[in-house]
Amino acid sequence: MKAIEGFIAEPQGFLASGICAGIKASGKEDIAIISSTVPAAVGAVFTQNKMAAAPVLISRKHAQNDYVRAIVINSGCANACTGPQGMMDAQKMVTTAAEELGIDAKEILVSSTGVIGKFLPMDKVLAGIKKAATEISSTGGEQATMAIQTTDTFVKRSAYEFVIGGKLIKIAGIAKGAGMIMPNMATMLTYITTDVAVSPTLLKKMTKEVADKSFNMVVVDGDTSTNDTMVVLANGEARNELIENETSDGYNEFYTALLTVSQDLAKLIARDGEGATKFLEVTVRGGATWEDAKLVAFAIAKSPLVKTAFFGEDPNWGRIVCAAGYSGAIVDPDKVNLFIGGEQIVHNGMGSMPDNTALKTIMAAKDIAIVLDLGLGTGEVTVWTCDFSYEYVKINGEYMT
Amino acid sequence: MKAIEGFIAEPQGFLASGICAGIKASGKEDIAIISSTVPAAVGAVFTQNKMAAAPVLISRKHAQNDYVRAIVINSGCANACTGPQGMMDAQKMVTTAAEELGIDAKEILVSSTGVIGKFLPMDKVLAGIKKAATEISSTGGEQATMAIQTTDTFVKRSAYEFVIGGKLIKIAGIAKGAGMIMPNMATMLTYITTDVAVSPTLLKKMTKEVADKSFNMVVVDGDTSTNDTMVVLANGEARNELIENETSDGYNEFYTALLTVSQDLAKLIARDGEGATKFLEVTVRGGATWEDAKLVAFAIAKSPLVKTAFFGEDPNWGRIVCAAGYSGAIVDPDKVNLFIGGEQIVHNGMGSMPDNTALKTIMAAKDIAIVLDLGLGTGEVTVWTCDFSYEYVKINGEYMT
Repeated sequence: MKAIEGFIAEPQGFLASGICAGIKASGKEDIAIISSTVPAAVGAVFTQNKMAAAPVLISRKHAQNDYVRAIVINSGCANACTGPQGMMDAQKMVTTAAEELGIDAKEILVSSTGVIGKFLPMDKVLAGIKKAATEISSTGGEQATMAIQTTDTFVKRSAYEFVIGGKLIKIAGIAKGAGMIMPNMATMLTYITTDVAVSPTLLKKMTKEVADKSFNMVVVDGDTSTNDTMVVLANGEARNELIENETSDGYNEFYTALLTVSQDLAKLIARDGEGATKFLEVTVRGGATWEDAKLVAFAIAKSPLVKTAFFGEDPNWGRIVCAAGYSGAIVDPDKVNLFIGGEQIVHNGMGSMPDNTALKTIMAAKDIAIVLDLGLGTGEVTVWTCDFSYEYVKINGEYMT
Repeated sequence: MKAIEGFIAEPQGFLASGICAGIKASGKEDIAIISSTVPAAVGAVFTQNKMAAAPVLISRKHAQNDYVRAIVINSGCANACTGPQGMMDAQKMVTTAAEELGIDAKEILVSSTGVIGKFLPMDKVLAGIKKAATEISSTGGEQATMAIQTTDTFVKRSAYEFVIGGKLIKIAGIAKGAGMIMPNMATMLTYITTDVAVSPTLLKKMTKEVADKSFNMVVVDGDTSTNDTMVVLANGEARNELIENETSDGYNEFYTALLTVSQDLAKLIARDGEGATKFLEVTVRGGATWEDAKLVAFAIAKSPLVKTAFFGEDPNWGRIVCAAGYSGAIVDPDKVNLFIGGEQIVHNGMGSMPDNTALKTIMAAKDIAIVLDLGLGTGEVTVWTCDFSYEYVKINGEYMT
């Protein structure tokens, strides 16, 4: 497997575009279309938030089909908490895209991201969809990536190529991240395209499994959005022998590629958490169970006290073990060992560094690995997060104004 | 019932002191003693954190007795994650206080608050306890209050007097709050004294009930500390007829007084959350169950996105309903009604304000009531919290340094 350049239109048979429809006050790209020239098997997971936005309700239904052809996305307005009007607007986005692309409405997924509780400016949105449909091309992937972003500070992409049975397969993903990041597939927008041939049923299963090992292991602020969506489209244009189940030739290669792209994007989302200055990888091992390790890892990764300590490079490691203590998991204080940046900080529940100078130096790094060993079993989980800065407060105190 | 001046030594038969032992680098008061001239019935609740600090382990045991005589407290060092040495140190605090006060070690509770993972400077602590024991008096309550604080920005006290069977009863409470505030009795240090005569068994039960309606309804950052403690001492010096059970004369009066003092202190803790600029009262009603209402109320009160929006006075009400959506409670989007500062913002799941100017004005207030009606049942819960500011990040990024 080899990392390659390129965006969402890199795999064979995919086209994309991103245009400025005027939804965002900034005048930046705000409508994207991703399409496949042939029907593509679809796997998808959506937010677990019970206030799921109108576009999520429609996409959740359409993604139950085996194959779809396109995704239409707008940023700048989430079309959430918008009632029947919001449903009509989301449906109109789909039918307009269907007409423009000459495909069936059921073959289209739709996403929105941005402010909650506002109606879409439908004149701009529909004109934008028409423009975006006209402009789709095999080089439009970068513009599409721009058009799905809101407070992101850099472009999030990942792409690889690999070989199955002599056929070159490409896979590419893009993501929109930043705030409101928290598992239960309530994390962000992410779209992955591949020209591999895979059965829709298997793809749906793989998408869920991979989401749990990638996007559902990212925390920025613990808020779970109303809109978030992961979609994988596989159009078979690489013409490998169909991957039908876990024992098929190429299954392992494709699984690894899909997981790698997803984890790449997930880490980029953590790295670009709103206001983030540091990337934190939190591994909890030795949990009595996997569930316990996950409880502890998320308690640490969500703790504002832990996150501000890393921002300030304040060697207050007690907050990490404290978070373990209130996580709800089984914790034996005398068996806890903590490592930060490879250095042992806590030995069997007690601080093991003579002074905090060394820890301050470790905390000055941009990328920091935190490993907490509970010493109770084999449960192990890794989650990715970022620190909590002044800038987070600024971004989120002024989002609408 | 009448609000009165005074601190923890105001009820008859209580003495207190607060002195500077040199544990805090700032040179401020850091050792307090609260004592009763006669044995006092004790009720107490402690942190649920599994990394509970050494003093909590000792106090939890001693508070199982019917009566105690004194509490010794230090700030500046939490004596948590300190292993066997920490247990020995906490025990030594107790035995030293016992010797100085001429009472049994089992009659003493002990608390510590401050940085986790450091050993107590025992020479300073023991000299400080001796000094504090010498200085206890009926006017020492204010110094005791100073001595239990860390990042608090103002003194937290509440006191009332009321009459039972012709006897004047006094009750007074003090609290240490600020960061690491989250329910499960993992909230703060609070000490309440009263000269009422009440049976120890009943007092223990009442303390738990009242904690659930006051301190366990406060959130600052969602972190649950290793040290937190609520203790109620009732020494009977008012000489009312013993309150033995819920049907005894005076039970209702005492319950109301205890709840009022506790809620006063709980609200002061929210108001003085680290970096707080606003006090938020979050009421969720219409929950399918009480548990559901609580899930939603805490999801809102803990959400960094909600809290930063209030700090920035950004009229982003969508984040409140979004938090309800991911809380895990049953939510029907079409039945949700939201009121902020008395104005209806969401009507049956949809925004009902023509523009956000009015909401911005409401959000400019210092005290804001948020009421979310789920429209599903009779479950109702109120929690108290604060906004999330630059100052929170600053305080917690520089706590140790």
